[in-house]
Amino acid sequence: MKRVTIVEIAERAGVSIGAVSYALNGRPGVSEETRRRIMEIADEIGWRPSLAARSLSGSRAHGVGLVLARPADTLGVEPFFMRFISGLERELSGQRIALLLQVVEDHRAAVEAIRLWWAERRIDGLVVTDMYAQDVRIPVIEELRIPAVLAGRPRPDTRLGAVWTDDTAAVDASVDYLVALGHRRIARVAGLPGLDHTRVRIAAFRAAVLRHGLGEPDVVETDYTAEEGGRATRALLSRRGRPTAILYDNDVMAVAALTVAQEMGLSVPGELSILAGDDSQLCVLVRPALTALSRDIQAYGLQTARVLLDLIDGRAPRSYQGNTARLTVRGSTAAAPDG
Amino acid sequence: MKRVTIVEIAERAGVSIGAVSYALNGRPGVSEETRRRIMEIADEIGWRPSLAARSLSGSRAHGVGLVLARPADTLGVEPFFMRFISGLERELSGQRIALLLQVVEDHRAAVEAIRLWWAERRIDGLVVTDMYAQDVRIPVIEELRIPAVLAGRPRPDTRLGAVWTDDTAAVDASVDYLVALGHRRIARVAGLPGLDHTRVRIAAFRAAVLRHGLGEPDVVETDYTAEEGGRATRALLSRRGRPTAILYDNDVMAVAALTVAQEMGLSVPGELSILAGDDSQLCVLVRPALTALSRDIQAYGLQTARVLLDLIDGRAPRSYQGNTARLTVRGSTAAAPDG
Repeated sequence: MKRVTIVEIAERAGVSIGAVSYALNGRPGVSEETRRRIMEIADEIGWRPSLAARSLSGSRAHGVGLVLARPADTLGVEPFFMRFISGLERELSGQRIALLLQVVEDHRAAVEAIRLWWAERRIDGLVVTDMYAQDVRIPVIEELRIPAVLAGRPRPDTRLGAVWTDDTAAVDASVDYLVALGHRRIARVAGLPGLDHTRVRIAAFRAAVLRHGLGEPDVVETDYTAEEGGRATRALLSRRGRPTAILYDNDVMAVAALTVAQEMGLSVPGELSILAGDDSQLCVLVRPALTALSRDIQAYGLQTARVLLDLIDGRAPRSYQGNTARLTVRGSTAAAPDG
Repeated sequence: MKRVTIVEIAERAGVSIGAVSYALNGRPGVSEETRRRIMEIADEIGWRPSLAARSLSGSRAHGVGLVLARPADTLGVEPFFMRFISGLERELSGQRIALLLQVVEDHRAAVEAIRLWWAERRIDGLVVTDMYAQDVRIPVIEELRIPAVLAGRPRPDTRLGAVWTDDTAAVDASVDYLVALGHRRIARVAGLPGLDHTRVRIAAFRAAVLRHGLGEPDVVETDYTAEEGGRATRALLSRRGRPTAILYDNDVMAVAALTVAQEMGLSVPGELSILAGDDSQLCVLVRPALTALSRDIQAYGLQTARVLLDLIDGRAPRSYQGNTARLTVRGSTAAAPDG
């Protein structure tokens, strides 16, 4: 199989190699019309950016970008990201590839960072986390032909590779287990409502509750922080016909819930069962230890890095489904109280 | 004031500008003898690397490196690093500077990463954390003239800038407070014994205990993880004449201690006072909430980035002492039990 180079693109387009390089890298120096023609030819002959980058410069950036669009304050508390980054690093540092990290306020700022890194050849590819339903980053990444992997579900609006786990199955298993324990009033404290995976999990929760005939599903949305997790718990437990079991979208909020239950004089798991949507050392540090949905976040990071490196090496984008999170039952869940 | 350029160094040394560049950047292509002569001249005329880098290439790398030499597993649990990184990012991303992050197993691997990044001009400077008494990174950073800031105490063996807080004063205040509450048997669960700041804190603890005439200071060393924190606590509480108060070198171990106390049937703070050496949301998520030494880790990261950017801009290395950690008293400390 012959490899496509930008020399070939330049020949077909009747322009210089430099012009092709400008066009493919989204830099100024070439007219919009020429850029479009070059892009069309590149598509036609199945060009992949990594090949071009290497054939042009003879070397890679040896860098992979991760732009986290979350308030900086919340990142320190959430064990997820540092574990995910550790997993990425396991694969990347073995190959002497640096991880470029930037924490920004929102996706518009993320797009700026991505454009800059790519234009300056500081990255060979991107890891994309925290996808939104309408995600402004995706069209930009596609326009610039940046090798990129979504850490999340494959999406209909892009052919980018994705590394994901089956959130629906995990939520199903959680609800099934609580119902088996006799719970009929089960609520969910969800994460950031704009995020893809929050929506998938909320939808799964609603479907499971309806399937079990438990009435109107009760969901409170939060920003994933301990404060909002605690506040949501307080609100749910103050209702008439309060839930006897609550599922939380991460571990931090579930730990906060434990404190709120104590403050309100409700015993866990006697009067309230708590189930954490992420498992970390936090869950075993508290008493009772928290029943949680466990998966290997480091392995998830490592796998994401592998799929991305494949892509950078010029292999076709692929998606990889990791192990579904499994229920690790500890002391925070038990049979529903009578009545 | 005239600025020193590598042109001047080349003239004085009677070599090409290229040779000076090779020598100053630690790249091959120049004999060891020439390199030494160039370095001497550079020292003589007060050359600073950032100036040279810019005058040579006309542009910066717009990247700052952070190499974390800790087992990847432990990073996810420790809120410190993600908060520190958030603080760095606050300053860096405003100036469109990327943070290059690499997690490595030990300092030898860190040195490799640093050499590679510098040789390939991927960084303009370095943030150095987790200093050891004998630290193999420091001579390499000095040899390569990399602008670098220590996130920790200034050291006698280097002129590198440092951003630090007074750990001795913070430990003193903790011991004084516990003694004022009537405690006479106070132990310390320390972090990684190789680290500079662990040693400083252990020394401060020993001195404070001796100053108060409390007998032989009791210190157990750990690796900062919840497991070892729990194990150390179990060992201390199993001794005859067990301590009535324990200071922990971070928050994760203090939370683990709470669980061990519960497991051993000791009430906190009735029979055991617990004091955490780092404050984070963890401390207020548990019950009783933990008394802790609080400081603004994000501000610490931000300040570190500022000192480094100054250095990269060609200003003289300086050290900055941040606010000393203060005792935030919550529910885990109280008067010593009778007897």
